[in-house]
Amino acid sequence: MPISKNALSTLTSATAEIMQSEWDIIKNIKERVGVRPSQDSPIFGIGDDCAVYRISDGRYGLFSTDISIENVHFDLRYTSFHDAGYRSMSANISDIYAMGGTPVLALVALGLPSSMTQTDVDEIYRGILASSSNHQTFIAGGDISASDKLVISISIYGETTMPVYRSGAKPGDYIYLTGKPGLSKLGLELLQSGKDAGRYPLSIKKHLTPDPRGGITAGITKEFAPSAMIDISDGLISDIRHVCEESGTGFIIDTDLIPVPEEIRVFCRGEMNKVLDYSLYSGEEYELLFTSSKPESGHDEITLIGRITETGYFLKTGDSSEEIVIAGYDHFQR
Amino acid sequence: MPISKNALSTLTSATAEIMQSEWDIIKNIKERVGVRPSQDSPIFGIGDDCAVYRISDGRYGLFSTDISIENVHFDLRYTSFHDAGYRSMSANISDIYAMGGTPVLALVALGLPSSMTQTDVDEIYRGILASSSNHQTFIAGGDISASDKLVISISIYGETTMPVYRSGAKPGDYIYLTGKPGLSKLGLELLQSGKDAGRYPLSIKKHLTPDPRGGITAGITKEFAPSAMIDISDGLISDIRHVCEESGTGFIIDTDLIPVPEEIRVFCRGEMNKVLDYSLYSGEEYELLFTSSKPESGHDEITLIGRITETGYFLKTGDSSEEIVIAGYDHFQR
Repeated sequence: MPISKNALSTLTSATAEIMQSEWDIIKNIKERVGVRPSQDSPIFGIGDDCAVYRISDGRYGLFSTDISIENVHFDLRYTSFHDAGYRSMSANISDIYAMGGTPVLALVALGLPSSMTQTDVDEIYRGILASSSNHQTFIAGGDISASDKLVISISIYGETTMPVYRSGAKPGDYIYLTGKPGLSKLGLELLQSGKDAGRYPLSIKKHLTPDPRGGITAGITKEFAPSAMIDISDGLISDIRHVCEESGTGFIIDTDLIPVPEEIRVFCRGEMNKVLDYSLYSGEEYELLFTSSKPESGHDEITLIGRITETGYFLKTGDSSEEIVIAGYDHFQR
Repeated sequence: MPISKNALSTLTSATAEIMQSEWDIIKNIKERVGVRPSQDSPIFGIGDDCAVYRISDGRYGLFSTDISIENVHFDLRYTSFHDAGYRSMSANISDIYAMGGTPVLALVALGLPSSMTQTDVDEIYRGILASSSNHQTFIAGGDISASDKLVISISIYGETTMPVYRSGAKPGDYIYLTGKPGLSKLGLELLQSGKDAGRYPLSIKKHLTPDPRGGITAGITKEFAPSAMIDISDGLISDIRHVCEESGTGFIIDTDLIPVPEEIRVFCRGEMNKVLDYSLYSGEEYELLFTSSKPESGHDEITLIGRITETGYFLKTGDSSEEIVIAGYDHFQR
């Protein structure tokens, strides 16, 4: 739900500056109203993947919204209307999973350029419904407007008995990751360059029609009792940093432990620096990153990649570890 | 939440055609999935002001979303950033009241042009917060993106113990209206023409910073046990028609009973046809229109304006009544 680095990366510097200050504004609002709007309010989770609303003891509503705009979040030269809808819906559903929740319903607001035909609009809905029905999420309503550029603004509601926040990581906790990161970034690059797309079908698929990790969420909650969780929408490094910032901790990630997808391995021809670039900076992966005091369970799709520390952000490769220097809000330099 | 006539009226015919077909698509979806997604689902209210989700026996969550786009819903030549935020928030809150609910929290997704400064963005939030805090609605999260035009997409959650749908009107029911309609349309026209705005301050205020009818909702529910309710966002005639279409009924409205604001009276200089145009077609009023089997209670701000009938849409003026002919989806001819 919060500002994504991917959105920022395609912006002009002027806009990036606004977005930066916008972040400040949201921070200001958060500080002004407090994490809860009042002493007795049942609303919290502001600034997390979802806002959390206590419905009753042991039952929580999860709320999130994501806005996708043509030429910022998707490019219609290589994204079909179906896929634009699909990935927007998936991004929203992923926010619910990132809180340990189950999606229930979603509302779809569209801004439609006059150049679009009825078939185009139908295709967007077909994509939205393809993703939502995979995750038992009901499209309960929406709104439409004319617009210069295509806007897809989806809001989602889910529920959980135990929300998992970004802020619960503790020094000593293990850092776990579902799946193998990198494909979405490669997919985007191939689509942008218009070259070799056919040779990397999984990367293309991961970028255009990402599937949030619903099946695994119940297992994570049960086996790992995660202390903090986030979905990888900005990139592994950026998202673990969100967790650590909210938790007041540091991290050390062992880059040798991050699983590498076959297509990334082939594309990078064994150049480890190149591989790492995909592992650490690929956004819109919608894999889950979580921390837990529990040791590995041998789960096929869950990999231990590091530990939460008291302070500092470190990458370990082989026997050497290197501190990451932060330059600006969402930019890292190694 | 559904498509607004005001949005349509500013569109090119090509876009209007899409929107028309979009309405068809939504209808198709609604028909395909049914009013409830499955036999046992607790989700209903699709196509109403809000989607309704049964949280537990006697407790319902209300969900709505409204998207406002520069040059479609507001014009920055005469709408300040503050007011653009204020009216977007008010439109959302009004959807909750229209279901007989109380707003709880909202999420704000913004698309920001690169020309906007930090102060501009802050002004939008100031407007949003001014409206939301009037109605104890907490801004719990949001999203931002770069955009060519300013986009304000707000989603709201509220609750009620007894949702009032559009579909419950019954022949013989009285038709009631809060407030006096017309000012928003006059305000818009004055702002667009750039003339005489200073002479009609209430019209300008009603258009730029409308206030949804929160204070009166509890009274309506208690005194009138409304059979159907809607907020006036498209215009009185258009909105009573929504109610009748969903309820499978007709209506007769006595135009002599519709209360006329002083500024409309002055502006129209007693030309009743002109007055009627404002009464019947002014959108974005955010007054409540409801039906009830209960007779008038003498409430200051609630006026009886007609009756629900078996079939047909009629306007009564003096002793003569005239059937309204519908031309196209949201266009009426008298």
